[in-house]
Amino acid sequence: MTYVEQLGLNAKNAEPYISSALTKLKNDALSAISEALRGNAELIIAENLKDLQAAAENGMSEAMQDRLRLDENRINGMAKGVDELIALNDPVGEIIEGTTRPNGLEIVKTRVPMGVIGIIFESRPNVTVDAAALCLKAGNAVILKGGKEAINSNKCLSNIMRKAVESAGLPADVIQLVENTSRETTAELMKLNGYLDVLIPRGGAGLIQAVVKQATVPVIETGTGNCHVFVDSSADPEMAVNIVNNGKTSRPSVCNAVESLLIHKDCAEKILPMIAEKFSEHSVKIYGCERTAAILGDSVLPATDAEYATEFLDFTISIKVVDDISEAISHIRRFGTKHSECIVTSSLASARKFQKEVDAAAVYVNASTRFTDGGEFGLGAEIGISTQKLHARGPMGLKELTTIKYFVNGDGQIR
Amino acid sequence: MTYVEQLGLNAKNAEPYISSALTKLKNDALSAISEALRGNAELIIAENLKDLQAAAENGMSEAMQDRLRLDENRINGMAKGVDELIALNDPVGEIIEGTTRPNGLEIVKTRVPMGVIGIIFESRPNVTVDAAALCLKAGNAVILKGGKEAINSNKCLSNIMRKAVESAGLPADVIQLVENTSRETTAELMKLNGYLDVLIPRGGAGLIQAVVKQATVPVIETGTGNCHVFVDSSADPEMAVNIVNNGKTSRPSVCNAVESLLIHKDCAEKILPMIAEKFSEHSVKIYGCERTAAILGDSVLPATDAEYATEFLDFTISIKVVDDISEAISHIRRFGTKHSECIVTSSLASARKFQKEVDAAAVYVNASTRFTDGGEFGLGAEIGISTQKLHARGPMGLKELTTIKYFVNGDGQIR
Repeated sequence: MTYVEQLGLNAKNAEPYISSALTKLKNDALSAISEALRGNAELIIAENLKDLQAAAENGMSEAMQDRLRLDENRINGMAKGVDELIALNDPVGEIIEGTTRPNGLEIVKTRVPMGVIGIIFESRPNVTVDAAALCLKAGNAVILKGGKEAINSNKCLSNIMRKAVESAGLPADVIQLVENTSRETTAELMKLNGYLDVLIPRGGAGLIQAVVKQATVPVIETGTGNCHVFVDSSADPEMAVNIVNNGKTSRPSVCNAVESLLIHKDCAEKILPMIAEKFSEHSVKIYGCERTAAILGDSVLPATDAEYATEFLDFTISIKVVDDISEAISHIRRFGTKHSECIVTSSLASARKFQKEVDAAAVYVNASTRFTDGGEFGLGAEIGISTQKLHARGPMGLKELTTIKYFVNGDGQIR
Repeated sequence: MTYVEQLGLNAKNAEPYISSALTKLKNDALSAISEALRGNAELIIAENLKDLQAAAENGMSEAMQDRLRLDENRINGMAKGVDELIALNDPVGEIIEGTTRPNGLEIVKTRVPMGVIGIIFESRPNVTVDAAALCLKAGNAVILKGGKEAINSNKCLSNIMRKAVESAGLPADVIQLVENTSRETTAELMKLNGYLDVLIPRGGAGLIQAVVKQATVPVIETGTGNCHVFVDSSADPEMAVNIVNNGKTSRPSVCNAVESLLIHKDCAEKILPMIAEKFSEHSVKIYGCERTAAILGDSVLPATDAEYATEFLDFTISIKVVDDISEAISHIRRFGTKHSECIVTSSLASARKFQKEVDAAAVYVNASTRFTDGGEFGLGAEIGISTQKLHARGPMGLKELTTIKYFVNGDGQIR
């Protein structure tokens, strides 16, 4: 039995305890985790420092080092996130629907935990805590695999959580970290059929594509967001400017940020300069079509299919002037990643057409794509944003970490 | 662009027409299909004969040839199945839930078609019609890949359906058949990311495992059922005999048939001989543990882990005498395939324990596992039985061929 298989077996053995745990026990475990995080802040910071020192020696960028850093504030933030989960409804045990068949057979469709969930993630060590706590609240055992660059932080956080859940009366193995971060263990985790019920990658497009290509266990694809705003000819100019600017500049590194602007030819001359002025506050780099350049001038870099297909995750945007809503929809069909798409319009017909015909997890009328987020949707904390259509689409909260089971009750019925 | 990619592109191009089709249009297309099947029975039988002749020449078993055969009766059966779909509720457009957020943003979770569905199946040509009709009613384009042995039948059925949907006003490409049945095209279909939203294999364990291992598109694993009945010490003997016998002998070739019997030591001496007597009517072959052999005598073949792990799909069963319900649950945990499991008991405590602790799509108390079926559950026709936990579990009907989309409506909200 390999190291990874052993983790799988440990998780399987721990699973019945967590899947059958009552809400109170799970909440006690979450309380114990949040308390232990706060009580061990010094230890966490010391272990995190080892990762930061190694990162500095390896020449990691300042931005990436910042993502890796844990300070008192961020530790409190993690603990607070765990506390907030306690208040959320436990999805397990919900009777979703049911029926009594003509022969008297009762069929009760009930929500149950998924089982064992694998999470592969990069750099930010807070995912270790967020993901483990979400899986626990939904009644699942979890196997976490973080990045090599955060291994000391992740080990420390995982050990603190394992002790905490144990003190609450659950097996420590409901939370396990893959401590060997080699490529081989990652590859093995992706093929851990029979142990893993689902694997969720959280990170850049490279990681996600590697998991989609290699995994033989069921996967939920997350996070790539080449999100568009289409400004229709009837759009309120000020609203259009605000929505585009908010989508692009409020937090460009996240998957619900706007990457591409499509604007109707009839309003482009008026609205594009207004947007460009707002963008200048953040020195947004613009790739545009010829009509965009004709309006905004020489600062516009020429946009090719490559730019229209790029999720910049930065203060960069691609712009295209389109003839009509149909061209906008076709463009999104070609380049979108089915994450979040938006139309700014005052036409009811355009709003309905866009929402019906654009195929994405969330299709907005007159609101910023930045709202695609579990908390903003009122679903509570999220484990990621699914961009696939199977099982979960859009923000994945506690419910998306469960499955169903049919309880069938009879009095001796045979077929 | 390869042949398979071209099919993918055709499906993508047809998808908007079928996904936005109103219920009436889809029902008209289904009517046209059923009428065309009945009207072309002679042609279908002639094309099917080519497959049957080739099968006989290749030495296909009588049982397999029977599965391949289409006669007037079976064609009527297929047409009737399509007609029944017309009466089922259209799942598309259901408003599942919704909310207005504190900032006034309306979030409406709506059921929409999955998109493009791939189905890989073996031998029985009626799957061509059943699967295409189900996908169509749920608003999806479908790419069908049947077995080489049924290629003439499948081509004929596919062409008839394509003409029928076209006559109703939908593009023919909402239904496509992979006419090149080589291994290469199959392998390519499994990796058709960007075109296929989900791939559903229907067939034997070999096919399903090959798809699970090789596919990079999302897959729903179906069908393997190593189903157990556990006869508790408090079971009504007659009920136990009926449920075990019905599970094993009413239709042994299907996935919801019983493959293994676990019986409490305190009632084994009384009930096992009663079951064996019933089994003798069908000459059921028995693999059993030592205690089984001690009760039933020399006709019992010794059961090893291999037999306990086998889905016989035949008049064969494995039997184990267990000390208590916990041993039964552990055994199922080890050898079950999470399809359908049953306890026969008169103890409320045992019933609750079994249903909670056994992890399967359907867990029965005092009823035959043979009821795990879309029709029997009241879900209407099914595309298969999911044995995975992601997206769908148990019988998959129209709803399971859909996904969700968030319609988000605002008045200029930004974050």
